Amino acid sequence: MASPSFGFLSKVRKRITPSPSDARAEQAMVRRLLREIKKTKGPHLSALLCGSMARNTHLRGDRDLDIFVFYSPKLKRESFEKNGLQLAHKIFGKHFHEEVYSEHPYVRGNIDGFDVEIVPTYKVEKASDKLSAVDRTPFHAQYMRKHLSKQQCGEVRLLKQFLKGIQAYGADVKNQGVPGYLVEILILRYGTFLKAVQAMSQWKNNTVIDLEEQHSTPQDALKQFNNTHLLVIDPTDMSRNVAAALSFNQFARMIMAARQFLAAPKERFFFAHESPSMTLPQIKSHLAMQELMGIHFPFPKETVEDVMWGQLLRVSKKMQHGLEAKDYCIRRHFFWTDGQEHAFIIFDVENPSLQSSKLRIGPSVFDATHVEHFLRAHPKPLSGPRIEEGKVVLEIPRAFPEFKGALKEEAQLTAQTEKSPLREALHQFALLDEGQIIALAKKNKSFQHALSAFLKGKESFL
Amino acid sequence: MASPSFGFLSKVRKRITPSPSDARAEQAMVRRLLREIKKTKGPHLSALLCGSMARNTHLRGDRDLDIFVFYSPKLKRESFEKNGLQLAHKIFGKHFHEEVYSEHPYVRGNIDGFDVEIVPTYKVEKASDKLSAVDRTPFHAQYMRKHLSKQQCGEVRLLKQFLKGIQAYGADVKNQGVPGYLVEILILRYGTFLKAVQAMSQWKNNTVIDLEEQHSTPQDALKQFNNTHLLVIDPTDMSRNVAAALSFNQFARMIMAARQFLAAPKERFFFAHESPSMTLPQIKSHLAMQELMGIHFPFPKETVEDVMWGQLLRVSKKMQHGLEAKDYCIRRHFFWTDGQEHAFIIFDVENPSLQSSKLRIGPSVFDATHVEHFLRAHPKPLSGPRIEEGKVVLEIPRAFPEFKGALKEEAQLTAQTEKSPLREALHQFALLDEGQIIALAKKNKSFQHALSAFLKGKESFL
Repeated sequence: MASPSFGFLSKVRKRITPSPSDARAEQAMVRRLLREIKKTKGPHLSALLCGSMARNTHLRGDRDLDIFVFYSPKLKRESFEKNGLQLAHKIFGKHFHEEVYSEHPYVRGNIDGFDVEIVPTYKVEKASDKLSAVDRTPFHAQYMRKHLSKQQCGEVRLLKQFLKGIQAYGADVKNQGVPGYLVEILILRYGTFLKAVQAMSQWKNNTVIDLEEQHSTPQDALKQFNNTHLLVIDPTDMSRNVAAALSFNQFARMIMAARQFLAAPKERFFFAHESPSMTLPQIKSHLAMQELMGIHFPFPKETVEDVMWGQLLRVSKKMQHGLEAKDYCIRRHFFWTDGQEHAFIIFDVENPSLQSSKLRIGPSVFDATHVEHFLRAHPKPLSGPRIEEGKVVLEIPRAFPEFKGALKEEAQLTAQTEKSPLREALHQFALLDEGQIIALAKKNKSFQHALSAFLKGKESFL
Repeated sequence: MASPSFGFLSKVRKRITPSPSDARAEQAMVRRLLREIKKTKGPHLSALLCGSMARNTHLRGDRDLDIFVFYSPKLKRESFEKNGLQLAHKIFGKHFHEEVYSEHPYVRGNIDGFDVEIVPTYKVEKASDKLSAVDRTPFHAQYMRKHLSKQQCGEVRLLKQFLKGIQAYGADVKNQGVPGYLVEILILRYGTFLKAVQAMSQWKNNTVIDLEEQHSTPQDALKQFNNTHLLVIDPTDMSRNVAAALSFNQFARMIMAARQFLAAPKERFFFAHESPSMTLPQIKSHLAMQELMGIHFPFPKETVEDVMWGQLLRVSKKMQHGLEAKDYCIRRHFFWTDGQEHAFIIFDVENPSLQSSKLRIGPSVFDATHVEHFLRAHPKPLSGPRIEEGKVVLEIPRAFPEFKGALKEEAQLTAQTEKSPLREALHQFALLDEGQIIALAKKNKSFQHALSAFLKGKESFL
């Protein structure tokens, strides 16, 4: 086998670096905003560009501009929040903007094509002194500006794009992947993109990265963080794992993708090569091999699409657990929304019909009190009671011997336990069988595409 | 609730104690046999009646007469076996008898209605010096004759009959229950039948009984015996657990039955109240609630029925494991033979039809070599490869999406791994569906009865 060549990386690098004219426009916008904040009256002390644009590690086309406005730690929380919002509203003026609430409220909007966030923050001495959740961020900006070389900024871009390509970039609920700050730490740790990928391909479970050696040993650090799969100590705050949002599966995917890339490096690792949708006949023949059934419900009112993806993730997992408790074996589930009108949760079920009777495994014979309750609770079983493996067991009629009924029940139960407006939306659910799923795919190309990807169920890098 | 009354026990006691005329006949037969052995020429030293008749703890109608013939430990194994058989053949004369081989050969037969066994044994100093497996038995006889009071012999009978009634008596493969010698030890330990049952009802897991306190502590003993559920140290040999053959489930059943008996003592605990067979319509309506499917095969040639029950137990467990590996969830299985022509193994299967595709869970991403093999072994999966919970998974077509096919395959595979004559018998298997199972029950009352008991699946004491 020929030794793999990485020559194409310079092409990738060029494609993902903002052009000189992009950079000029970005800098002009930053200067303009900082100037406006400075001349606006209020108790704020100063303002600072944070985020990847501040470190020059942002990807081309990524026009996020995060401006942090500093307030004295002596300022009461209430005035801090009020003044922060007032200032931001003034700066945005007539440009589109909205208040967003994460730990405290801030404003985001769009000015001349830039996605701008104006975030109030306390000016604290050390990251660990933080009074609000975002107070740590300016320390990150400072740390990276001090340590990342110009050359390394380019390497950060390559690694970010690689992680984007394998869908492991972003620490949000949907991705459970790698945040930008972590990518920067990896480049500081390993030096270059290629060395980082080589290291990644060799990662074992319980990998520890502690740039500033803030913990005495990796074992020591792991103990404090409950042996997580990847522990990356924040160089500005030793009590924080920068990789906290990275799921175990994303961690495993990164390792596998790194290995595959090193064995056969290709540009398509960086630019997720969207696999074409299946045709409707292909979908039909695929569905003949498995049992899909799901629910449709309207997109809940006044909900942000991003938030809804998180809700779908949570709700579909909850329903899956409920269905499993009813003895249905769910192989995979799939959720999708168009972000406006429709939401879908679809299950791939191993055993769509069960026996009409159900085994009830009661307490151990040693537990006399519970045995008595159990026997009294089931005075006329279909079969039993008997003792199996030391436990009292019996059979009773099964409430939901068909998956359809179980799914209906589970959707109703789930709706009841959710809050508005998801609750109202879920209450309007309709069951979807395979015919309806196919009909939906026929009507909506984007759904067809998502369904195809689910049915193929293939990692782009495998 | 009225305090339970145990007055009926005297009635039970009377029913299970051999009558004076029984006892006279038994003693006459023992004397006759011992006399004949004494006057027969050969290297044997003496003879002794062992077993429960020797201790006067045998149940009425139980006419087992075990005579042990002693040889010098200096006698070579070969002469020991040869002389033992020769002597026994002479004693049985024209009465029906056969050679049986357990660890060494001996002869059993029937003389005037008594089931007689004549077993050669080495006359050793201590039970632990034993040269052959049976050399321990005479020490048991000696120990019990020394320690059991006349009164306690009656208590042993009650406890034996109680264990018979709940089907926990006998240490054979089919019962995995309590041997007679253990019943005697329990009476020595607890004093009376009622006290023994009271103790039993309170037993916890890892109960230890060490009459002669041969081990320093129960914990110590348990460690040596791998923490078994019930450890009863043989008073004549501290390295032996008299309860070794008792399964965990039988142990649990004894505890539960004891508790039920004490709460509502009834005569039927002693005399297994045979529940009537279901009618055919009852069987049909029961089968509508579950999925039964099985195999029939001819009774293997020249096989003893007892041995066959053991084979059925083993083979049906093996098949169950094979079916489970094919993703079928077996709730229970049931086997039956008429001891002459037919044998049946029937499974109660939770999921008789599965999807046409099957999830293959491959190695962990961390195991690069096996991941590579796995991916190469499945070049064109139906879906995947993808990474789930850190493992490479994919879907492939399922070989046996219907239970019927899986059962057929499993029966063929099992036949191949068995030895003659079971192998030949299994090779002639036929699949049984519910219709055929009902037809069988219609034709064979004994099968109908066994099937009914299986379908009811109810402990007589619950």
